[in-house]
Amino acid sequence: MTVIDLEHLARAQQAIVEAGRELHAAGQVPATGGNFSVRLDDRYMAVTASGRHKGCLTPADIMVTDFAATPFGSSLKPSDEARLHGQLYEDNSFIGAILHTHSRAATVLSRLESSATLWLSGYELQKALEGVTTHEARVAIPIFDNTQDIAALAEAVRTRLADETCCAYLIRGHGLYTWARNMTACLRHVEALDFLFECELALRR
Amino acid sequence: MTVIDLEHLARAQQAIVEAGRELHAAGQVPATGGNFSVRLDDRYMAVTASGRHKGCLTPADIMVTDFAATPFGSSLKPSDEARLHGQLYEDNSFIGAILHTHSRAATVLSRLESSATLWLSGYELQKALEGVTTHEARVAIPIFDNTQDIAALAEAVRTRLADETCCAYLIRGHGLYTWARNMTACLRHVEALDFLFECELALRR
Amino acid sequence: MTVIDLEHLARAQQAIVEAGRELHAAGQVPATGGNFSVRLDDRYMAVTASGRHKGCLTPADIMVTDFAATPFGSSLKPSDEARLHGQLYEDNSFIGAILHTHSRAATVLSRLESSATLWLSGYELQKALEGVTTHEARVAIPIFDNTQDIAALAEAVRTRLADETCCAYLIRGHGLYTWARNMTACLRHVEALDFLFECELALRR
Amino acid sequence: MTVIDLEHLARAQQAIVEAGRELHAAGQVPATGGNFSVRLDDRYMAVTASGRHKGCLTPADIMVTDFAATPFGSSLKPSDEARLHGQLYEDNSFIGAILHTHSRAATVLSRLESSATLWLSGYELQKALEGVTTHEARVAIPIFDNTQDIAALAEAVRTRLADETCCAYLIRGHGLYTWARNMTACLRHVEALDFLFECELALRR
Repeated sequence: MTVIDLEHLARAQQAIVEAGRELHAAGQVPATGGNFSVRLDDRYMAVTASGRHKGCLTPADIMVTDFAATPFGSSLKPSDEARLHGQLYEDNSFIGAILHTHSRAATVLSRLESSATLWLSGYELQKALEGVTTHEARVAIPIFDNTQDIAALAEAVRTRLADETCCAYLIRGHGLYTWARNMTACLRHVEALDFLFECELALRR
Repeated sequence: MTVIDLEHLARAQQAIVEAGRELHAAGQVPATGGNFSVRLDDRYMAVTASGRHKGCLTPADIMVTDFAATPFGSSLKPSDEARLHGQLYEDNSFIGAILHTHSRAATVLSRLESSATLWLSGYELQKALEGVTTHEARVAIPIFDNTQDIAALAEAVRTRLADETCCAYLIRGHGLYTWARNMTACLRHVEALDFLFECELALRR
Repeated sequence: MTVIDLEHLARAQQAIVEAGRELHAAGQVPATGGNFSVRLDDRYMAVTASGRHKGCLTPADIMVTDFAATPFGSSLKPSDEARLHGQLYEDNSFIGAILHTHSRAATVLSRLESSATLWLSGYELQKALEGVTTHEARVAIPIFDNTQDIAALAEAVRTRLADETCCAYLIRGHGLYTWARNMTACLRHVEALDFLFECELALRR
Repeated sequence: MTVIDLEHLARAQQAIVEAGRELHAAGQVPATGGNFSVRLDDRYMAVTASGRHKGCLTPADIMVTDFAATPFGSSLKPSDEARLHGQLYEDNSFIGAILHTHSRAATVLSRLESSATLWLSGYELQKALEGVTTHEARVAIPIFDNTQDIAALAEAVRTRLADETCCAYLIRGHGLYTWARNMTACLRHVEALDFLFECELALRR
């Protein structure tokens, strides 16, 4: 029998609703882009349903799925990319929340950088990322080529992240995935990374 | 006898008032630029009157005209470009709403691109446009040279769009026209297209 | 005996307070930059006192001076540049309101353009400027070198504008002066000109 | 016996809370970046505790320390960089408030400028800085290389500022420190300096 803690689910939904409002106001999720999730336990997550505008979510727009993205107790369709969230929760027990955003800087920088890694260094704000303690560190952000085959992309991410420590990756011409132990820390990752991407774009001009 | 459904008109006016507030806040309609419409039936549309500031419209600023832009039951003057809206409704029965905006990116990019088509490809956010299902598609946005002769421009649009499938066009140094089945979808088109125009400008630098 | 219509003054003060709020929110008057005025009659104007933050003006921050910038019935110090407002009212009886703003685009473009005139053409939004009816017009915006000698600057403006029709001028590295028959039209000039300056900067890159 | 004026402390905390809200809205303190202080007397300051998000501070997030950054009557941890505030208060009795911000322009410009000084000249808005009376002045903003050794940085600042008059310095790839007689004047410094940094970046392109 599957049991979901309903109070936990309600808090997760509320955290996602508020994250959507903040991220839309910050220009991180234009049109109906982006998707967000919170881990419920070791098998289930709360995740945004497909096609919702992220600036005006309600709890009813946030559904429960397992990590394979199969809906649980809901007739809604999850975001196409829900499996990318599930892969991260499966492989990393510390992850409590995941945000996928589509900023201008992430979109442009991931196309300008033709290699498979964006390197960031020399920025004090790197320290806002979990595990980074100095501006002298070189922070690697893996870049994956975009594809509409989400299952294949999830496998590519799994393979690469087995060997690399990071707190975010980019999909080329598409956007950012970042994760943290909870939603508050994850929102700070988005804020810091987008700042760093904009600085990096300006420095490359 | 001409009958307009007054409830339908009131909903159309309300949708246009709210779109104006959202688009002005997003910097899409500086000064009194831009004009917006909603289809009422197969002969009439609700359209913004000339010269109104789009950030603070009231229902009284939105009038009824036929598709030739002749006012119906109103002494207001319609937007000069109302005929461009009428042409699109005449030729495309699926269109329910049309937005014309003047963003910086649309203005600049349409001048930098000297050919008659802006091509977009490789962006995930293309999928926010109706009919586009992959970032691998090449999306064509026709560009027309600007003119103060609106009747001639409407004919040029009619001729070109008879042969091309698209959901938007640009007028050079002027702005964007985009359309969709309803106002919500049309607002998403503006949001997605302006994002793509800004990315494209940044990539071309 | 000098008589000021107090109701007229109260409306002028209110218009200036609201303009300040709108222009500060739009990034047009950083720090305590900028100054604003409304004509009261053929000898007096209401003008912002020196050093006020324009985002949070109250009616008490807006004083009466004559066109030589001599205070009338107030112990406040007018903006250093009040004489530039007075000169325009003296020479142009149609002017009802004047706004001086300090945007990034006006500051940068007036330094990049080394000649004495910024020419704008090919933009539909030119039509938001009083007297411009087509994008095909070439709109001249005079540029004056900056100086701390305001009396000399006022004379230089007077001399040049005797021969040229325009609705705005730039002071190099400093900002924009624009005027219109009333405050609403003048705010639209600021909005349109700053849009055009940003487009022009982007096109020149 | 140490006596802190509790009404003074409450006003200082309120000023810092409001500064945080304004600066976060203006994009000056992404993630949990930045730190702020107000002088209490000739030995103590009120300063932000470590790791707080600056957009939603409460008085409880603002603690008392001496100028060596030793907490007084609080179990909170002060910002790592509190000693940089203390050094400025120790050496300059006129300073009433200090703001440290992390804007994109400050971060990028301090990396692009490889020398030890950023020079600003030709901008009218320079006059918003205390002690600057003309656009013809050359304003020096010292730049220090970033380091995680705050004590060493405080000494480097002390040594250099003993010989130079300025109202702000930059830390490379990190951000801005600026100070003034009170918080209102200090907020105007941030607003003016960030404007000037953005203009300077645009001019260098």
